[in-house]
Amino acid sequence: MSKKIERIGVMTSGGDSPGMNAAIRSVVRTCAYHKLECVGIYRGYQGLIEGDFKTLDARSVNNIINKGGTILKSARSKEFRTREGRDIAFKMAKEKGLDALVVIGGDGSFTGAMIFSQENDFPVMGIPGTIDNDIYGTSSTLGYDTALNTVVEAIDKIRDTASSHNRLFFVEVMGRDVGHIALNAGVGAGAEEILIPEEDLGKERLIESLKRSRASGKSSSIVVVAEGDKTGENVFDLKYYVEENLPEYEVRVSVLGHMQRGGSPSCWDRVLASRMGVKAVESLLDGKTNYMVGIKDSMMALTPIDQAVKGKTDIDLELLRVSDIMTT
Amino acid sequence: MSKKIERIGVMTSGGDSPGMNAAIRSVVRTCAYHKLECVGIYRGYQGLIEGDFKTLDARSVNNIINKGGTILKSARSKEFRTREGRDIAFKMAKEKGLDALVVIGGDGSFTGAMIFSQENDFPVMGIPGTIDNDIYGTSSTLGYDTALNTVVEAIDKIRDTASSHNRLFFVEVMGRDVGHIALNAGVGAGAEEILIPEEDLGKERLIESLKRSRASGKSSSIVVVAEGDKTGENVFDLKYYVEENLPEYEVRVSVLGHMQRGGSPSCWDRVLASRMGVKAVESLLDGKTNYMVGIKDSMMALTPIDQAVKGKTDIDLELLRVSDIMTT
Amino acid sequence: MSKKIERIGVMTSGGDSPGMNAAIRSVVRTCAYHKLECVGIYRGYQGLIEGDFKTLDARSVNNIINKGGTILKSARSKEFRTREGRDIAFKMAKEKGLDALVVIGGDGSFTGAMIFSQENDFPVMGIPGTIDNDIYGTSSTLGYDTALNTVVEAIDKIRDTASSHNRLFFVEVMGRDVGHIALNAGVGAGAEEILIPEEDLGKERLIESLKRSRASGKSSSIVVVAEGDKTGENVFDLKYYVEENLPEYEVRVSVLGHMQRGGSPSCWDRVLASRMGVKAVESLLDGKTNYMVGIKDSMMALTPIDQAVKGKTDIDLELLRVSDIMTT
Amino acid sequence: MSKKIERIGVMTSGGDSPGMNAAIRSVVRTCAYHKLECVGIYRGYQGLIEGDFKTLDARSVNNIINKGGTILKSARSKEFRTREGRDIAFKMAKEKGLDALVVIGGDGSFTGAMIFSQENDFPVMGIPGTIDNDIYGTSSTLGYDTALNTVVEAIDKIRDTASSHNRLFFVEVMGRDVGHIALNAGVGAGAEEILIPEEDLGKERLIESLKRSRASGKSSSIVVVAEGDKTGENVFDLKYYVEENLPEYEVRVSVLGHMQRGGSPSCWDRVLASRMGVKAVESLLDGKTNYMVGIKDSMMALTPIDQAVKGKTDIDLELLRVSDIMTT
Repeated sequence: MSKKIERIGVMTSGGDSPGMNAAIRSVVRTCAYHKLECVGIYRGYQGLIEGDFKTLDARSVNNIINKGGTILKSARSKEFRTREGRDIAFKMAKEKGLDALVVIGGDGSFTGAMIFSQENDFPVMGIPGTIDNDIYGTSSTLGYDTALNTVVEAIDKIRDTASSHNRLFFVEVMGRDVGHIALNAGVGAGAEEILIPEEDLGKERLIESLKRSRASGKSSSIVVVAEGDKTGENVFDLKYYVEENLPEYEVRVSVLGHMQRGGSPSCWDRVLASRMGVKAVESLLDGKTNYMVGIKDSMMALTPIDQAVKGKTDIDLELLRVSDIMTT
Repeated sequence: MSKKIERIGVMTSGGDSPGMNAAIRSVVRTCAYHKLECVGIYRGYQGLIEGDFKTLDARSVNNIINKGGTILKSARSKEFRTREGRDIAFKMAKEKGLDALVVIGGDGSFTGAMIFSQENDFPVMGIPGTIDNDIYGTSSTLGYDTALNTVVEAIDKIRDTASSHNRLFFVEVMGRDVGHIALNAGVGAGAEEILIPEEDLGKERLIESLKRSRASGKSSSIVVVAEGDKTGENVFDLKYYVEENLPEYEVRVSVLGHMQRGGSPSCWDRVLASRMGVKAVESLLDGKTNYMVGIKDSMMALTPIDQAVKGKTDIDLELLRVSDIMTT
Repeated sequence: MSKKIERIGVMTSGGDSPGMNAAIRSVVRTCAYHKLECVGIYRGYQGLIEGDFKTLDARSVNNIINKGGTILKSARSKEFRTREGRDIAFKMAKEKGLDALVVIGGDGSFTGAMIFSQENDFPVMGIPGTIDNDIYGTSSTLGYDTALNTVVEAIDKIRDTASSHNRLFFVEVMGRDVGHIALNAGVGAGAEEILIPEEDLGKERLIESLKRSRASGKSSSIVVVAEGDKTGENVFDLKYYVEENLPEYEVRVSVLGHMQRGGSPSCWDRVLASRMGVKAVESLLDGKTNYMVGIKDSMMALTPIDQAVKGKTDIDLELLRVSDIMTT
Repeated sequence: MSKKIERIGVMTSGGDSPGMNAAIRSVVRTCAYHKLECVGIYRGYQGLIEGDFKTLDARSVNNIINKGGTILKSARSKEFRTREGRDIAFKMAKEKGLDALVVIGGDGSFTGAMIFSQENDFPVMGIPGTIDNDIYGTSSTLGYDTALNTVVEAIDKIRDTASSHNRLFFVEVMGRDVGHIALNAGVGAGAEEILIPEEDLGKERLIESLKRSRASGKSSSIVVVAEGDKTGENVFDLKYYVEENLPEYEVRVSVLGHMQRGGSPSCWDRVLASRMGVKAVESLLDGKTNYMVGIKDSMMALTPIDQAVKGKTDIDLELLRVSDIMTT
């Protein structure tokens, strides 16, 4: 039987994403609402090990809902991957009187939370914070919507110059294993071609497609490429291949990089973060543990954290088809 | 039995919203993909009556996916509300050889489409384009997400000055009958109070709430007020009431107005518009008529257009509760 | 002979404007660079009277360069307008060991600084922080450039919906006594008419101009109106007048309001603030007092603070002419 | 003696920049205002050679003031570098009845204009359109201000993630020969170090500076690097050097690339473009030729085009010093 929960720790872990601060604020205020103490743990699991704690009251999270990044900072912890490290972390948690933990992060962070919870019978709840939208059990992860807007705004700017010069641009976006950002931002930006890890288009078909695009009267082209795409070795390799095979094209490359992780969160991400924080704290109060909070069909939903980690989020085949039709 | 569809008309009707152009583009390109002719009808039903038509090919909609407003313009038509007007419209549609109609608009536009379709056995398909998100059968209407971002960005700016001066701001946002924008943007902007048509808080409770907020240590406050809220006669009435009852507050009013209807659509609205356009055209090709395209649980879904018009979209009670908790 | 300066106070006063935080940061870091102590004075002159002080070191102003508003807050002080109030303020300044004061604000704030300085032989330096750009001695005040961008972005959005509906919009922008924002943002937004306090167009000529605009083939129109314009009693009065005299127009009004004061400062305002902060502190170190820092012909320049207060900034006649030509 | 000017050609040439469309609009409308015909020349000098012309009336440039890129497109022309090519261009200009040419572009474009003008005694006027701000005779080129805002907004986003992870970022910005963008955007973004072509900091001093920055308590750092900086071979070379010498740092690289050339122009760039277009056309009407329009001390000014091309724009030493002080 689980102990009554009076003090909850909250941390951000792994790569940061827009909306993490909004989620921290929500966890803190939900604790205040239910008269619980909320303890901020700095620098993820490493801070848990080192006891880098600070009690957070409702006012301490004023004016952070619209800020990118995470006020609790984030870090990777090699130590936490060892049993020894996790034992120290548990000792710290007990010393501080923590009764439960809310972890805002991605896959890797949830795996850590799960193991920690099992080893120590310690209640944990996950909130999916990552721009990649690659977590099973939620149709949207925190930061994904903001990142999509960042990418389409950047490509809109690139389109201006592409159109003015009749150029071809390869734009690399984040997504080492999944193509959600590339596919959605590609459709949103009206890209002529979208290359994702889930599909290998093949260089020859890329060339065919670009030829078709030009034949249809398009004078400029944007190709969105997910980091993890395997059509070429990388985006520069693709550039050289196209320049060799389509010498009439001037090709330019843009690598959007880490700006995709930052920025003021969109309204969607702020509201989602607010809802998830409430759900996470109240689920812990309901005696639940080892779940991840998600959104499904516009409603909050819990998914066992091991399923969230193991599950796969497939690329949207309908949207792939929409993308094809849009490049008519 | 319905005639084979070879020529589809597309129009925007009622108030414009971000994403309408992306939807037009999608309808046009889906027609091109299926070798159908697509005819743009200008100025809504009035243009249908006046025969203000233009054939649109795939290239004619280049570079509009990211533009606010509608290239087809929009207008209200008193004439179309009469049987006579609709008869002329039908004659025009037949003369031009139109076999079906895609109407991008809101409630009123759908009612017109429905009547027109029934009177003339003419296939119609609706795409919900309005910032208000007040259409049954879709969790999101085109332009709603963009409007939310516009509102939170504006309130973020107002918050800067509110915080610097310890002031109270009433910010009026759109929503004559429904509070979706006010509630979601209010939560997203961290508003201290949100007033919506669906709930009458009462002026006394507003005063209590503002007192509580100040007592809890907040030095500035934002109150988001939907146009249609009934707590006061209007937002200025509220201002005077508060100034009388809380003389320690300096109160300012901001009416965001029509900027909420414009702007480059968010990635979400662009992708949604692209998907809806495909679904609308292909549903007509499948022999369907008198439906509205919507999104439910991340998937395209059809709703009979009369249900879309009559149905109600309730305010999200869970989110109201989240809002309360966030103002702890 | 003036005492060696070892401790400088900095405050923001009057209406806030974007770039004030960047200026505070610059004053603080320039003090640190020269091994001076910098003391933040909260809530302007009222905080000076109440001794609401906090020593600020170089790290205390991290990550504020891009934030709107002012971390030192701002307020009006009736007390400081009395000799008695200013005497208390001086006593407080001496108690804290302040040797000089940097005041970031507008006209009114500078008048206060000037009197305070003369009464107490106390070194002061002004930095012009106001969105109105109505200070003599600088071609640009802090926040003006940002406000212009805020206004044109808002009008761009309004233009989307104006164009879609063939509507006429009156957009009221800040500027009670001067039309700099209206004129520049009006030209920047491509407004069809710009109404400023410096010129009384007259209602009849407004009607003539709108008729001409429509006759020339324009289907929508934006009229930018400075708060202080005297063509009508106010922007709503203009709306009614136009609706009576041009019944073919649907007229809408947008009052942009306080969002014009907030937001992340533009690069120009951040750089200008950084330069002005350095100049203010180093001018005090050079033994100068009672000056305002400004920018003239791309270079830092000092203007005696009484001239800054009394001087007039005339409206740019060339730009008025450009505006006329642009509406051809 | 020069012929009366009745027909003016306008083109954009070289790399595009935000504000070019606003300048085209201004040239077109100023021509309309003075009852001149305005002829748009597509794709720069290549279009002049090929006779790719289109008459532009006042309404043809509606709604372009806020669009990035150039509706006239731009291109490089090898042919125009030959006497033969220029002779064809002149023949085309005469055939079309052009009496003068307004060229919106940079250095290279102006050199072409100058030679063309001298060989054929043909009136030309230059408008400086480039984001690099490297043209003598104007304190600001079209697009520069917009590019600065694009860069600081991108770095603000990167700062979010840098701060969350205590990372060091190298951000490469445009500027092959000049460091104006790097220096101004670097100061505006609060960069800890700024590397420009005009100064060779040396790798060792970079390391020293980064050490100092960390010792002073900064947990993250942004280094802005102009493309043309010579401290390392390139930005990736710098990354490896720092990682070798400061192993405690996690280093990331962001190359902002062509998004810097696009986007909706800032209010400043729109107003500047409007003013320059008027000045260019009216100067031609005044019988002037072979000048570039610029802005000096807030006023329009003409500079002989050969001086504009040969002159140097020095880096602002005062701003370099401000940058040093800000990183205290």
